[in-house]
Amino acid sequence: MRDVCVIGLGLIGGSLLRAASAVGRAAWGATDSEADAAAASADGFDASTDVAAALRRAGEQDALVVLAVPLPVVGEVLREVGKHAPGCLLTDVTSVKAPVLASVRSFAPDARFVGGHPMAGTAESGWRAGNPALFGGAAWVACVEDDTDLAAWAEVARLALDVGSHVVPLTAAAHDEAVARISHLPHLLAAVLATVGAEGGPVALALAASSYADGTRVAGTRPELVRAMTEGNREALLPVLDEALGRLGAMRGSLASTGGLAATINAGHEGAQALAEWRAQTPAGVRVSLTAPDARDGLRALGARGGRITAITEDVAIGEVA
Amino acid sequence: MRDVCVIGLGLIGGSLLRAASAVGRAAWGATDSEADAAAASADGFDASTDVAAALRRAGEQDALVVLAVPLPVVGEVLREVGKHAPGCLLTDVTSVKAPVLASVRSFAPDARFVGGHPMAGTAESGWRAGNPALFGGAAWVACVEDDTDLAAWAEVARLALDVGSHVVPLTAAAHDEAVARISHLPHLLAAVLATVGAEGGPVALALAASSYADGTRVAGTRPELVRAMTEGNREALLPVLDEALGRLGAMRGSLASTGGLAATINAGHEGAQALAEWRAQTPAGVRVSLTAPDARDGLRALGARGGRITAITEDVAIGEVA
Repeated sequence: MRDVCVIGLGLIGGSLLRAASAVGRAAWGATDSEADAAAASADGFDASTDVAAALRRAGEQDALVVLAVPLPVVGEVLREVGKHAPGCLLTDVTSVKAPVLASVRSFAPDARFVGGHPMAGTAESGWRAGNPALFGGAAWVACVEDDTDLAAWAEVARLALDVGSHVVPLTAAAHDEAVARISHLPHLLAAVLATVGAEGGPVALALAASSYADGTRVAGTRPELVRAMTEGNREALLPVLDEALGRLGAMRGSLASTGGLAATINAGHEGAQALAEWRAQTPAGVRVSLTAPDARDGLRALGARGGRITAITEDVAIGEVA
Repeated sequence: MRDVCVIGLGLIGGSLLRAASAVGRAAWGATDSEADAAAASADGFDASTDVAAALRRAGEQDALVVLAVPLPVVGEVLREVGKHAPGCLLTDVTSVKAPVLASVRSFAPDARFVGGHPMAGTAESGWRAGNPALFGGAAWVACVEDDTDLAAWAEVARLALDVGSHVVPLTAAAHDEAVARISHLPHLLAAVLATVGAEGGPVALALAASSYADGTRVAGTRPELVRAMTEGNREALLPVLDEALGRLGAMRGSLASTGGLAATINAGHEGAQALAEWRAQTPAGVRVSLTAPDARDGLRALGARGGRITAITEDVAIGEVA
């Protein structure tokens, strides 16, 4: 099993250092946060604040470097990668993929990079919030671009599988479009709902029940995390926001004119059923040879159909799709 | 304890017939639904499909009549009330209050009417979905208008308290404005989110995690229930929708121009904290004499501050407010 070097020891990085160690991988971490480094060391992990040294060691040992830092500092850390481990095997766990890919091409162009995003997290942050089971059962997107090195892709996928996730192969663009819909839009609608609700004062808060609590829950997430992912995904998010605004505007017009909301409410009900039906499907097994000439297309087609990779042999990705 | 006559034996009416019976009140029900009437009778309750007879009996015994029918048929049932029990003690459990008040004034003007709304429910419907514990811990709005008969108000409040709810005194207008914010807007945003999410196809559904599941949960509610409450609250809902649309539009403009979403996200976080802080408050006890000349103002002021009534003696409402 390949060694793992985790840069950033917050919730995700800290959980990954624990999880990789737990499955028997040699793993070390580094972070700018003295508090996180001290806490990780105190818990018995190989952690320091010397990011340069950690990266050099990764370069020497051909370890898999995992960038687990917030999106706004990814560029800065990639400069360090370019300097101390220029040709390393590299992935990240950031919630937006196209901007990270662009940064890698600027700052660490020789890295064997595969964009990654484990769809796991909590509202907590920092080393203390982490746990090795964080990735169990989660979707872990591992990006496949036209120039992706499939051996590197398989290494990233193996790490994700080792820590309990299943792997979803997608392009960075397909990932960003999907998360704009199912993660970033929910966060922004929750923020507006929580604002409009609170504007109603004590009466509104006193009457708030489960529909309000459900609809505003993610508005409690730390604002800097929500800003990083939504602002960082601006290009993919704008058209999705416009789609939502168009539907909301049409609804408002219909309520004001005919008084009818059937179109909006029925479409929403169908959407809710689509998710329930999707989750109730019985998937069928698939195999993608990683050495076939069209392997990248095969992986991306699987991801585009909502499929997942659940195991990897030496050169075959084994998965399922409904 | 006053007898109770429940018209409509679906989820809410059926639960109330059970709950009122469970606390030892004489209670009977009637419904147009042969299935619900048969199911209620089979469960040992006094239930029939003869709404006119149930109402006449309520008039004769001065029972409290509870309208538990969907909003679209409230007017029709109120005509029956005006015909068979014109001066009865009357309340309802509908999710919108001003339109019901207007209907009562048209169709049963002599009823001693107090608008009501227990903030309880599930996505289920029909007699079989009911249970006597449905109202435990719920806010039950009991409306106080300038001409509300406070003896009738106290009767409605006592029923709500008997079945485990606390009572929130509000005008119909204040109720409708608040539920537009914390119930109807959440349902409509969830519908649009579920639609935009499903438009993302299998990739989006495969990546959907808790933010999407939370944000779309109420989109699974039966469309006719959501339509009844939102379309029925058109007057109060339109300005709230416009407030939300204004905030969403400003957010969209900010993302497109400066790329910044801090204002939206910070306001949402403050809104989420406002709810958490509201719920963490320690309330102080209050008493409102129901025979005082300003009793209606006192009750409404308590409700406007987010307070609640938790007990009623012969002529004093005892409650708490933070």
